[in-house]
Amino acid sequence: MPDFSRTPDGKIICTLIPGDGVGPECIAATQAIIQAAGVKLEFETRHAGESVFKQGIPSGVPQDTIDSIKKTRLVLKGPLGTPVGFGEKSANVTLRKLFETYANIRPVRELPGVKTPYSGRGIDLVVVRENVEDLYAGIEHMQTPGVAQCLKIISAKGCEKIVRTAFEFARSEGRKSVACATKSNIMKMTEGLLKRTFERIAPEYPDIQSWHVIIDNCAHQLVKKPEQFDVIVTTNMNGDIISDLTSALVGGLGFAPSANLGNDVAIFEAVHGSAPKYAGKDCINPTAVLLSGVAMLRYIGQFEAANAVEHAVLVTLEDCARKGVGTGDVVGYEKPNTLSTTAYTEKIIGNLGKRSEKWRVRDAKPIRMPQISAEPTFVKATSQRTVGADIFVEANLLPGDLGPKLEALLEGTALKLKMISNRGTKVYPLGGAITDCIDQYRCRCVLRQGGGKGESGTLADADLLAAMTRISSAPGLRWMHVEKLMEYSGEPGFTKAQGED
Amino acid sequence: MPDFSRTPDGKIICTLIPGDGVGPECIAATQAIIQAAGVKLEFETRHAGESVFKQGIPSGVPQDTIDSIKKTRLVLKGPLGTPVGFGEKSANVTLRKLFETYANIRPVRELPGVKTPYSGRGIDLVVVRENVEDLYAGIEHMQTPGVAQCLKIISAKGCEKIVRTAFEFARSEGRKSVACATKSNIMKMTEGLLKRTFERIAPEYPDIQSWHVIIDNCAHQLVKKPEQFDVIVTTNMNGDIISDLTSALVGGLGFAPSANLGNDVAIFEAVHGSAPKYAGKDCINPTAVLLSGVAMLRYIGQFEAANAVEHAVLVTLEDCARKGVGTGDVVGYEKPNTLSTTAYTEKIIGNLGKRSEKWRVRDAKPIRMPQISAEPTFVKATSQRTVGADIFVEANLLPGDLGPKLEALLEGTALKLKMISNRGTKVYPLGGAITDCIDQYRCRCVLRQGGGKGESGTLADADLLAAMTRISSAPGLRWMHVEKLMEYSGEPGFTKAQGED
Repeated sequence: MPDFSRTPDGKIICTLIPGDGVGPECIAATQAIIQAAGVKLEFETRHAGESVFKQGIPSGVPQDTIDSIKKTRLVLKGPLGTPVGFGEKSANVTLRKLFETYANIRPVRELPGVKTPYSGRGIDLVVVRENVEDLYAGIEHMQTPGVAQCLKIISAKGCEKIVRTAFEFARSEGRKSVACATKSNIMKMTEGLLKRTFERIAPEYPDIQSWHVIIDNCAHQLVKKPEQFDVIVTTNMNGDIISDLTSALVGGLGFAPSANLGNDVAIFEAVHGSAPKYAGKDCINPTAVLLSGVAMLRYIGQFEAANAVEHAVLVTLEDCARKGVGTGDVVGYEKPNTLSTTAYTEKIIGNLGKRSEKWRVRDAKPIRMPQISAEPTFVKATSQRTVGADIFVEANLLPGDLGPKLEALLEGTALKLKMISNRGTKVYPLGGAITDCIDQYRCRCVLRQGGGKGESGTLADADLLAAMTRISSAPGLRWMHVEKLMEYSGEPGFTKAQGED
Repeated sequence: MPDFSRTPDGKIICTLIPGDGVGPECIAATQAIIQAAGVKLEFETRHAGESVFKQGIPSGVPQDTIDSIKKTRLVLKGPLGTPVGFGEKSANVTLRKLFETYANIRPVRELPGVKTPYSGRGIDLVVVRENVEDLYAGIEHMQTPGVAQCLKIISAKGCEKIVRTAFEFARSEGRKSVACATKSNIMKMTEGLLKRTFERIAPEYPDIQSWHVIIDNCAHQLVKKPEQFDVIVTTNMNGDIISDLTSALVGGLGFAPSANLGNDVAIFEAVHGSAPKYAGKDCINPTAVLLSGVAMLRYIGQFEAANAVEHAVLVTLEDCARKGVGTGDVVGYEKPNTLSTTAYTEKIIGNLGKRSEKWRVRDAKPIRMPQISAEPTFVKATSQRTVGADIFVEANLLPGDLGPKLEALLEGTALKLKMISNRGTKVYPLGGAITDCIDQYRCRCVLRQGGGKGESGTLADADLLAAMTRISSAPGLRWMHVEKLMEYSGEPGFTKAQGED
């Protein structure tokens, strides 16, 4: 367990960010219930989100909030909004990135009285989603005026951390299985890296069953037979989609807590947004934030208090179901049987100390976050050489015209044109495909016989730059993107195009 | 409607690919039913998949299959397998790419007697998924031995085609709304391109309601309230996940047909795989292939026959439900009430001519595929200039060491270092983020004051290559990837890093 910041009388200090919209009401309810449960916790209130954007801070996160989090390393927060016209990035995402909270934990479980098409099937699963890399890095470049590109970046270090976190989390909650969901059949290198890491690490956890599932089938199975899943580990973008899918299985965002865990900082927050239309009306369901608070209590080792609050929630929901009352998201807003946020909160406080007979609470142990070297280089190759380059060019030409033009340009350089592809499908040499080309072509250039330096033939940067200079000189052609083709430890570090030999 | 290839006596010719595993049985059932419905169609049987891979053809698609499809432009196929150790790419994907079938149409509808948690809610929706670009292009490069990258490529032309197809499809089936599902809030350029294209084109279809939904919320809503959706248009990878999600809503892959439509060729196939464990046992549910065949009949204008077959399926399923019998996927395999493929097929044939009273069949009109210029350049900028470059380097250094090193290297060149990011988060100049760096750094270099050529300042290729030469010269640094930073029509063609000013 991390060494938390404490007050002189020993209370753990937690940075509290009330957030926007319904956030302050959810946070107030959570704070009241946690305090009523007798938890000794000191809250340090800080701000982020809308009000901060409007002060002109483009990140939405001011320095004193950053300073507080750096000190406490523990955050309980409400949802943050991004006002239209302010800020390019969500402050929620900024906080996760600023503090390298690389694991997003999204548990969903069936709850008493929250009726869904799946009620009675005992859904109780957790999505462990990588939280800082993948397409979410948002690295985008317009390759031409009409062609956009985003980089999906997946690192071995990131995969190691998220896979170990998933298994450690499973262990901490006594869960039986971890499924790894990827699209490794299409993206062998990026998504495949998570799968291979998973398969390498799984044997270290013989007490936990492990299996791989293709992400689209995972979505299918989650709808068809969700009770087969326990823990699911996946990449950031896939995890975004399937974790939102899973929260719908058990009754929606009013009941979906989350934790963002890193080695230094942990941020606990609901999955839902700031829902401005419900703000200030004392009508929001605070359960998602409250259950995020319960996860936080477990994280700081307050297991008894966590269990007490969770039992109080279960007992309250059982009682609500019996009486046919509930928060607006469950029974409808502004109905005779609708409970206000305040009334619901008081009910939970009144039920502290009671235990549900029918619904169980997991006995948890502290999670052991993986400790991994902070050195940037995580995988070392025994050898590496450059065998060519993919040069991406803009041209309003058809492949049959572009190919010979490039071949002529590269004559006398260290590189020769192997093939051209358009959106991954080989279009030159002509192969019979019907391809409606866009004006970004990937030109795969490889070392000519004897073109490389050294024994095994490696492309020198000077030779590559010389070839690029030739391409630069050609009218009607423009290169905008280059990728070296690498061989690491004798293995190719690039995939073939559709149709490439 | 395309001008199909016909026999001397006027019958449309269709290339028939029986496929692997359960494919031939599904295709035989479909063929029998279509013929019994009196459809005049000439099947030309060709092969692809396992047997072809094993002959040593690495694509899994032989030339005579390609030739047949180029002639007929119409394909009905069973699922194709990729035997372990043969072929890098699935032959199913190869066929879609070879013939630029850019639109994948995946309808799902509630069917009589196929019980799911959603039964009775009248689900009847279609996912229109872009089929040839996005991450599915599979363009991957290992940036360092431990960092993988895949390119997500989205073109304006591709977006225009898929959006128009979605609206045209909605019109052809008399559907009321099209939702566009993207992750434009995170990927403003790539996913945002689909959203912007959708919003531009939607007003041309005033008879159809249009709305945008964030893809993760779309997955949530599909589970929570699927009946709110009619047509959903989305990018390839997102569509892969949500279309598999939707097929589970109505009873699984045994009932999930699909069409792959292009301007030249259309391929009709089930969504399911070759399921080798059920092959040859006369136990597979052929409905998915059959309904793909029904979609094909509509595509070629045989609306009456299509409706007759669809009604026969509905009547058969109603009858099965009444009698408590069904195919193995519905009632369980090898039970007393299990229907064999043959028995089920005969039942459908026996029900040709009957019409379901309770379940409706849509009256369809021919779909008008969008006609778009084949010129590669689809969007033309009024001006474009290069304002810098993102140079991606491998270094086992921390940002505080890498930054000054690069600044020194770039001294005297046209470029200066603006910032460095790691997986999209700014790490230099140091900003207080806690970032566990990987060994791929993105170094954003911009034109120095007066460093550009021409009036408005554009980076010359020679100057960029000179700066790259400097980086090449530094020990402990290796560049492996370069992206030019472009301005098109005065607008930046690149996004900012998390934390970048």
